[in-house]
Amino acid sequence: MRAIVTVMPKQSVLDPQGVAVRDAMHHLGLENTGLVRVGKIMEIDLGASGPEIEGKLHEACRDLLSNPVIEDYRLELEP
Amino acid sequence: MRAIVTVMPKQSVLDPQGVAVRDAMHHLGLENTGLVRVGKIMEIDLGASGPEIEGKLHEACRDLLSNPVIEDYRLELEP
Repeated sequence: MRAIVTVMPKQSVLDPQGVAVRDAMHHLGLENTGLVRVGKIMEIDLGASGPEIEGKLHEACRDLLSNPVIEDYRLELEP
Repeated sequence: MRAIVTVMPKQSVLDPQGVAVRDAMHHLGLENTGLVRVGKIMEIDLGASGPEIEGKLHEACRDLLSNPVIEDYRLELEP
């Protein structure tokens, strides 16, 4: 089984990286560029499956892969 | 129009962040975890659409958002 974990800054949190990318895109001629948010994506080869693994994976997402104070995570599982 | 740009390290490039995540997941009880790759994801509100915008966006992906020597990018467009 394979997991895709996406970690994005919360909507209410300022994302300085996103602001920098937006400004740079304006300079490249994409003047209409609005909000840009920059996050992380992790592709994880789990080597096993089952509800227990999924539970541990959510734990890892909360404790290791994201900072719940400023970030939200999304977990997708692929067979 | 909205663009989702995903930037991942190339398969042939060592990903030390991925190795660190894999080791930490082993400690959290996910002993079967294999390859982990860590990349970036950018959600971009384009504010405009059309083939010209798409061309400029590919340019931005190559020149600004990824390092083509060590990374691959994937561009998805949402209406």
